[in-house]
Amino acid sequence: MPGRRAILTASASENRRRRAQGGADTEALLRRYREATLAEMKALLAGRRLHLYDMMRYHLGIAGGRGEPAAARAGKMVRPALCLLSCEAVGGRWRQALPAAAAIELIHNFTLIHDDIEDASHSRHGRDTVWRVWGEAQAINAGDGMFTLARLALYRLLEVGVAAPQVLEAARLLDEATLALCEGQHLDMEFEERLDVTCDDYLAMISGKTAALMGAAAAVGALLGGASEDAVGAFKEFGRRLGLAFQIRDDVLGIWGDTAETGKPAGEDIAARKKSFPVVYALERASEDDRRSLRRVHGAGAVSPEGVAEVLAVLERSGAHAASEEAAACHAEEALSALGGLQGLDLVSARRRELEALALYLVHRRR
Amino acid sequence: MPGRRAILTASASENRRRRAQGGADTEALLRRYREATLAEMKALLAGRRLHLYDMMRYHLGIAGGRGEPAAARAGKMVRPALCLLSCEAVGGRWRQALPAAAAIELIHNFTLIHDDIEDASHSRHGRDTVWRVWGEAQAINAGDGMFTLARLALYRLLEVGVAAPQVLEAARLLDEATLALCEGQHLDMEFEERLDVTCDDYLAMISGKTAALMGAAAAVGALLGGASEDAVGAFKEFGRRLGLAFQIRDDVLGIWGDTAETGKPAGEDIAARKKSFPVVYALERASEDDRRSLRRVHGAGAVSPEGVAEVLAVLERSGAHAASEEAAACHAEEALSALGGLQGLDLVSARRRELEALALYLVHRRR
Repeated sequence: MPGRRAILTASASENRRRRAQGGADTEALLRRYREATLAEMKALLAGRRLHLYDMMRYHLGIAGGRGEPAAARAGKMVRPALCLLSCEAVGGRWRQALPAAAAIELIHNFTLIHDDIEDASHSRHGRDTVWRVWGEAQAINAGDGMFTLARLALYRLLEVGVAAPQVLEAARLLDEATLALCEGQHLDMEFEERLDVTCDDYLAMISGKTAALMGAAAAVGALLGGASEDAVGAFKEFGRRLGLAFQIRDDVLGIWGDTAETGKPAGEDIAARKKSFPVVYALERASEDDRRSLRRVHGAGAVSPEGVAEVLAVLERSGAHAASEEAAACHAEEALSALGGLQGLDLVSARRRELEALALYLVHRRR
Repeated sequence: MPGRRAILTASASENRRRRAQGGADTEALLRRYREATLAEMKALLAGRRLHLYDMMRYHLGIAGGRGEPAAARAGKMVRPALCLLSCEAVGGRWRQALPAAAAIELIHNFTLIHDDIEDASHSRHGRDTVWRVWGEAQAINAGDGMFTLARLALYRLLEVGVAAPQVLEAARLLDEATLALCEGQHLDMEFEERLDVTCDDYLAMISGKTAALMGAAAAVGALLGGASEDAVGAFKEFGRRLGLAFQIRDDVLGIWGDTAETGKPAGEDIAARKKSFPVVYALERASEDDRRSLRRVHGAGAVSPEGVAEVLAVLERSGAHAASEEAAACHAEEALSALGGLQGLDLVSARRRELEALALYLVHRRR
């Protein structure tokens, strides 16, 4: 495991080289895990004929709006990958952890179905969101159903030979993370109405909203791979830190990303007055004039296109873009050092490189 | 255990006498279980300071809108009672099953928070619904949080000495019931737009929406009380049948109940074109003219106050009221016979009477 500062202090050209190499490796790794996790989720949904399940298949990108087969247009599936890679890293067989990986991806996706209603988002991955197709009432219920299906996915662990106490421990880790997720989402919505959100508030919010489930994904993977309690804790911290990095990168892409790559409409987060890292940074660090301007735009309810342009200018002037990139890299470093500092943790060597590559990939991804 | 037909064939005066006596006993029983379950839920919420948890406390009737203490104005808590009574009936200690009873009540209540949004209901138990107080977005998220909290409630079973495989089995029973519940809710909403809903369709819908969780409540209680697999299955059927009776009674109260007692605005279900038992019965059995009139009112989108009056007249003429009462009594009979038919099931004798009284109470309750 590389020591701290591997990402921050390497020369720019060294990082570029590693990024190119690691990026290709990581994409291949994600693809392998994604296909297996998708197959597990499809099996779980197979034979379920009620239209309710068509909504789930549609959201997951495995069916069109009327249940007809569709080319999979799923997300990156970073969370199941984190689970399966952590399982392999401690010497476990990743296929045995697949039911947990599917459960984690379903939990993540149930929250997306509900988030899209809560944020009134019209599109995801370039398609209409579930509530836009079937209305809010059916979409709320489809999300509830998907959450429940995630629980049923987990019981498949018993069938592949995992003992009941371990299955229960995996379930508990995921439930605690999901409650933290609801807390984070609660804060995220509350922050929209507030102008006094600090970087600490922001960290508390994304610790729940994003980092908790990624921490649980890594911890569950390690647990199912047979790791000790200490090692499970270290993987939890690894995933949690990666989650913080991931979310800050997400914030950056939400503002400066290429819509064609991200599939998210430009300016949407700014218009919704989301307290993303760059905005919170500027609220704390921009010049007095710029902070006043930011508070004025955010304090007036919905943000107009002119308001969005004004916020973008403030972010540019205050150096929020670079500060965000650095914060993400910093959390990715901490993620790696959480594993590096663990006494007696004998990681499978090929997986060691992949864990580092995944961290690099997550802070530099373009979608 | 009384044989079949105990409710249907007893003389009217005998039923009245048993109702009066059983009703008082059952109210006392429900109160005892309700207080213990409420205490368990309060303990689970204690120390959780985020405003998110105030929403949950408000919905459960244990706090006002700003988190201040409030006189408990909770529901009847039939489901936890069913769980705890079933545990006692097979010779178990009901206090050991309290974590499961709390989990069941939280699952039920998370669905109510979401149902109120889905049905656009403004009030419950005479107070504003959660989404009316905090908006839809926060209410969806509060429901998700409560569902997750229900899972965490269940792990407390480990602390009171239940073995991991049994905890997992209880969790699985509840998850399967919750998925059935989402299926039933899906159908219920779909039926609003349909005019060809049959009594069979209706049964499939309430089997999911109401009966599945009541079946699981009884099954989990028996399981935790140490019952055999066969007995657990019999209790599941007992609870499921009681659930059918309970929902049909609910439909009756929703149309002909006293608003002061039910806390539900009169005519709300009819205005929402809910395919309740009386309406579905009339759609199948009313005279040709009345069926045409029913289809016309239901086919025209939202139902006006005049439309509600017209539907009420049709229900009256077609005998839907009496047919509903009889259907509820019939399912309650089947519930009792599911237990009566089980070979070698040695029910605790005092509990035997209480199970029968509970069945009677549920089909004759006024709120």
